Formats: sequence, structure tokens, C-alpha cells
Amino acid sequence: MVRLIPRLKDMFIKANLFGIDMSKRTGDKVPEAIGVVSGCIFLITLFLFIPIPFSQSLFNSHFPHDEFVELIAALLSICCMLLLGFADDVLDLRWRHKLLLPTIASLPLLMVYHVNVNSTTVVIPKPFREMLGVTVNLGIFYYVYMGMLAVFCTNAINILAGINGLEVGQSIVIAISIAIFNLVELSGEIWKSHQFSLYFMFPYIATSLALLKHNWYPSKVFVGDTFCYLSGMTFAVVGILGHFSKTTLLFFIPQTSST
Amino acid sequence: MVRLIPRLKDMFIKANLFGIDMSKRTGDKVPEAIGVVSGCIFLITLFLFIPIPFSQSLFNSHFPHDEFVELIAALLSICCMLLLGFADDVLDLRWRHKLLLPTIASLPLLMVYHVNVNSTTVVIPKPFREMLGVTVNLGIFYYVYMGMLAVFCTNAINILAGINGLEVGQSIVIAISIAIFNLVELSGEIWKSHQFSLYFMFPYIATSLALLKHNWYPSKVFVGDTFCYLSGMTFAVVGILGHFSKTTLLFFIPQTSST
Repeated sequence: MVRLIPRLKDMFIKANLFGIDMSKRTGDKVPEAIGVVSGCIFLITLFLFIPIPFSQSLFNSHFPHDEFVELIAALLSICCMLLLGFADDVLDLRWRHKLLLPTIASLPLLMVYHVNVNSTTVVIPKPFREMLGVTVNLGIFYYVYMGMLAVFCTNAINILAGINGLEVGQSIVIAISIAIFNLVELSGEIWKSHQFSLYFMFPYIATSLALLKHNWYPSKVFVGDTFCYLSGMTFAVVGILGHFSKTTLLFFIPQTSST
Repeated sequence: MVRLIPRLKDMFIKANLFGIDMSKRTGDKVPEAIGVVSGCIFLITLFLFIPIPFSQSLFNSHFPHDEFVELIAALLSICCMLLLGFADDVLDLRWRHKLLLPTIASLPLLMVYHVNVNSTTVVIPKPFREMLGVTVNLGIFYYVYMGMLAVFCTNAINILAGINGLEVGQSIVIAISIAIFNLVELSGEIWKSHQFSLYFMFPYIATSLALLKHNWYPSKVFVGDTFCYLSGMTFAVVGILGHFSKTTLLFFIPQTSST
């Protein structure tokens, strides 16, 4: 991956996908949207990884279809966002498309969540318990919230675009935080969801580190919206299907405070 | 959709995605890779359609996860191919990528086939039965064959590219043939797989007809590799998961004889 990016640079410049770096003195062409390369490697890794968690039950009669569908739906949402991000880089989509399409891309996720978990009960923070009780069932609003989460995550990462290495750097920080949180929770009750999240976080961190090497100042490539969309959706996916979507928001606090 | 394409034309030309039509006298810029628009509409339709076949069992305890995962895996493969096709149009991928990536994109399909069906037995045509018996179990080779089917279908449609309206026209002919075959078989034993195939064929025919209207001579848009990849994968998907992959090949005979 580290060696792949320089070899593909010319291909991107030839396709008119380049920008002029505003924070450098020279006017060199820097290839744009390289995030699609790391995204594809990330997806290929996950595709090849699909059979591994199910290798034990592959030849049994009791195949865990519900866990399998979670993995496939997660991949579908990420793949959709990669397509959308790349289309945005190439075609410069309008704002309403940028809000509508991630919502549609997260539909399979919500469907899987509804089928497999369907818990829309939220624990109320202590100061408000006298008013609202210990838990409250948000029902349909919880699904709306999860749909918005995908849109929020993608745009929260996009917002810091423009400074060499910052988008990728912050994404890696968030990813490592999530991975550590998952590793700690592996000994907990719902270790399966955290293991699921780790399936995504490890290849994500690996591909992003390769990208960071080239995007670090002075950056030789730009990652483009592709990378932001991919990262945002990956975090939303592990948050929703790993059942820690509220915790995911905590990891995004640096993002929101900087806007 | 019919009205959407002209509005998006400028966006594609601005992104350097255009070609000069070799079969016209004028040197007008014709937007290329419009197949990605019809592909996205096709995907959005299918995304919104996901809950409908399962609406009855959505609030039951016995949710048919195995059928659900077929639909999601089919969408994943199609979405991957759409991404790949668009990347090919924009970046001009190399040949080895064009052969390798569709194979990887069909991995989730094969995995689902293995889990849900896992029948690798093929009925031998009558003239050869004395030699080989009535059926033969191809085992792992059947999976290799299905993986190759995806590559074959995409490239078989791509091969006729270049003449106004021909790629889209032939794809619609194949799609309508498959749809008629499915409709006839709906009264048969495995009606469920044929119903599954129809879920994909109807929106596919609808979006392709809109595309054909603009791609018909004198063509105002080019569909690009995006459309070929999308079509090929859609046919491969319904062939594999609809359990009529051998019949799908019959529908491709006009393709192979013209090469």
C-alpha cells in the first residue's frame, strides 16, 4: 500500500484529479482523491476476511446468518459511501445530495439493526432521571438519530479538510481510540459486538497509516472527500452495529469543538 | 430519471468526463460515464425496496435471515462493480485489475451461495450421460466457474461498446429475456429464486430504458464502462442467486457469437 500510492499518482493526475496545494510555495500538481485507493484496499481486505470469522460454522448446519448479515450490510454501507465520495470528488455533488445519499446508504444498516437488535431504549443521564425515569424508549426517533449519525460522522471529518495530514491524522486518532475502547470491552458482556468493531478498525488503521505517510506535510497526495466519507461511515457502522453509537459521538468531541 | 440526465450532463463535462463521438460528423463533447447516474438510481431504488419483501416477517420472531442476506450480498456485489466501473471510467484501470477486482467483488456472493444453497451438482446433458452419469458434483470448480461468470458477463457487455445505443439496447434485451423466463418459472417449484431475480430485473429495465432514450443514435450521452460493469454484475448476481447461472449463459449467446 505504501509503495502502491506513488505508482498510481500519475494515473490520477492524468484523469484531471489534482489540486494545487495552498500551503506550499510551489504550484506542483498534487494528485487528489487518493482516498479511493486506500478505501479499495480496505474493502478488499475485508472482502477476503469475510469467511474467517465464520470458518468454524461454515460446514455446520447452524450457520449464524444474523451475524453474517451484519458484516455484509456494514460492507454494503461502506462500499456505497466510497462510491459516493469518489463521485463527489470527480463530479462535485450538490449539498442536498451530500445529505440525502448518506442517509440512503445507511438504510441497510438500520434494517439490520432493526432485525437483529431492535433496542431503542436509552438510559437517561442521572440529573434528568427524576423527570424522565431511568430509561426511555425513543422508538422511531432512535432510527432517525442513527440515520443522522452517518451524515454527521462523514461531514465532521470533512470539516477539517485542507491542512496537510490533518484529516487522516484525526481519523487515525479516532480509530485508535475506538480500537482501545473495544479492546478494553472485549472482556465485557457484549464482547461480540466489540470484536465485530475490531474487524473493521484494524484494517482501517493500517490503510490510513499508509495514507498518512504520503499525506503528511509536505503532502505528496490529497485524500479527497472519498476518504472523509469512508472514514465517517466506518465509524458510524461500528458505532451502530457495535451498539456504542453514543460512545462514538464522544470520540467526535474534538471535531465538534473545532468547528 | 429521463429528465435527470440532461440536467447532470454539464457536471460530467466539467469533470473532464467526455468523449468525441466517432460516428458523428460534429466534434461535440458528449458526456461519458453517465451509466453511474442510472446505476445510482438503480441502487437507491433497491435500497428503498429492501424492507418490502420482508414487511410481513419484520415484526415476527422468525425473520428469514438467509433470504435477507442474499439480497444484501447481491446489493454489495452490484455496488462494488458500480464503484469499480466508475473508477475505470475516470482512471483507466489496467487489464489485470479489470480481471482481479470483479472476482473479489463476487466473493460475498459465492459465500452466500455456499451458506444458503451449497449445491454444486450439475445435470449432465443427455448425449454425455453414458460417459459421466446423470449428475456430476463439480465441488470447488463450480465456485471457480461462478467467480468467472461475473468476469465474463461484465466483459461480454463491454465488448460491444462504441456504437450508439448498442450496449444499453443489448442489455435491455437480455434483461427482458431473463424477466420473461422468471415470469414463466414463477409457477414452478423454485418460484422464490425467480421472484428474487425479478426484484432486480424490473428496476434494471426501467433505469436502462431511461438511459437508452439518451444513448440512442444520435446519442447525447455515453454510458461508459460503469454501465457495462453494472449490467454484467446484475446478470451474474441474478443468475447465481436465482440458481439459473447456466441459463444466464444462454442469454449471452448473441454476445459471444458477435465477438
